[in-house]
Amino acid sequence: MRVIPAVKEMQAEVLNQKAQGKSIGFVPTMGFLHEGHLSLIKKAREENDLVVLSIFVNPLQFGPNEDFATYPRDFERDRALAESEGVDFLFYPSVEEMYPNPSSVTLVVQKRTDVLCGKSRPGHFDGVATVLAKLFQIVQPTRAYFGKKDAQQVAVVEGLITDLNFPVELVPVDIVREADGLAKSSRNVNLLPEDRKQAVVLHKSLQQAKKVMDEGERNPSTLISLIKEMITSESSGRIDYIELLSYPQLLPIERLEGKFIIALAVHFTNVRLIDNFILEIN
Amino acid sequence: MRVIPAVKEMQAEVLNQKAQGKSIGFVPTMGFLHEGHLSLIKKAREENDLVVLSIFVNPLQFGPNEDFATYPRDFERDRALAESEGVDFLFYPSVEEMYPNPSSVTLVVQKRTDVLCGKSRPGHFDGVATVLAKLFQIVQPTRAYFGKKDAQQVAVVEGLITDLNFPVELVPVDIVREADGLAKSSRNVNLLPEDRKQAVVLHKSLQQAKKVMDEGERNPSTLISLIKEMITSESSGRIDYIELLSYPQLLPIERLEGKFIIALAVHFTNVRLIDNFILEIN
Repeated sequence: MRVIPAVKEMQAEVLNQKAQGKSIGFVPTMGFLHEGHLSLIKKAREENDLVVLSIFVNPLQFGPNEDFATYPRDFERDRALAESEGVDFLFYPSVEEMYPNPSSVTLVVQKRTDVLCGKSRPGHFDGVATVLAKLFQIVQPTRAYFGKKDAQQVAVVEGLITDLNFPVELVPVDIVREADGLAKSSRNVNLLPEDRKQAVVLHKSLQQAKKVMDEGERNPSTLISLIKEMITSESSGRIDYIELLSYPQLLPIERLEGKFIIALAVHFTNVRLIDNFILEIN
Repeated sequence: MRVIPAVKEMQAEVLNQKAQGKSIGFVPTMGFLHEGHLSLIKKAREENDLVVLSIFVNPLQFGPNEDFATYPRDFERDRALAESEGVDFLFYPSVEEMYPNPSSVTLVVQKRTDVLCGKSRPGHFDGVATVLAKLFQIVQPTRAYFGKKDAQQVAVVEGLITDLNFPVELVPVDIVREADGLAKSSRNVNLLPEDRKQAVVLHKSLQQAKKVMDEGERNPSTLISLIKEMITSESSGRIDYIELLSYPQLLPIERLEGKFIIALAVHFTNVRLIDNFILEIN
């Protein structure tokens, strides 16, 4: 595995490989790898000639009061994990390398952003889209792998790839969970012990909502109320949102049908956690 | 030469060619080709294995009161010219093909737009950047050729390529002029006979300004006044702007030094014409 910190070197390498007909699987991350990331890498490894993993904590997608400074980082551990998963190139640029001067051009996401995380994180998805547009140019992926935990991100990336004609196949990968159901997240490490115990309620409430739906409930409000009640009674977490929307359009629906997402975000002491189920009724 | 109207077919073709190590020269145009365009094609032909010409009148870069509807079009003539210049692929998509639905993502140009044409054409360069980002994905150029007549566009594209890391070499090509000095433009065909005669003053005034500069003048205001006076006295054109700025940064300068542009735009009866000199004093 080669670690490449320079944009020009990374780009020259993949352009050279692509000129030889090689396919490139790309896993963009902010590092502090967990089993969720590893499942993306494994899938990329299976489906492509070469695998590029990027680790870059992108300041553009953090708001002024968000956790850019405290976002967990451990490069040596990440490097060892990447190597053991058979990554070919680990792209690890500095902020200065990615943004040498204030950008003269940025991307603005016009749709799918005024709901879920986008509502409380203005500009977040503009930052995601801008860094991904750059990374897609630098890494030239044939396929790009994203976790369904960030379901709104997957929806935004789907729009980005389609509307700007990136020749990239988007591959969404299922959420990986702890034994007790908590979705794997780099941020979990910042949970206080008591919060960690309570955090299981996120997944539990989604399961309960699915159960009620399987029994025939078709009213979105009923499911949302049920989840809200469970989280409030079984944790001290402060609910940011619980929403039920069509997927990937992320528009409100009045009755459960077609493909939709139930998604939630809850603040604990040091960490805001998200989780979701993407479901389909036909 | 193959004419390709479909995005997917164009992209598949160039990706296939690039996987065989071929270089691609790209000339993006709005059609109604003149000798200026042909000089871009000739240069692309010399420097690349394959040449892609695109013809697309991009609605996104026209304002509501601009000439999208009357912009001159003559596809059969353009096709014959492209063929005779040795173009390999003529990409000729419909508006529906390029923008099948309202875009969920657009590009916003943050710099170099509040001067020259950008000042009187709000959103114009956002539309240019958005369509070029798409075209760069669809055509996958090794090199892209742009005329220096649209000098602000060249400056914006330079920022776009650098800041979003497009692996594309920007090749600016000199202005081609009529025998009397008028810069070639697709819009010249819409000039009334009397306006056509008077329009020669644009180039003449730039030459006069350069002469005065060569004789030692270093004050931008003096040159601007001189140009303004010539245009006003020798034509009935209405001046949109006459500006003198650093290039490609497009920032005001107080004294002529380094690389700079003298650019102007003048409204005639049916047409707004632009012209410029890019000069350097060291």
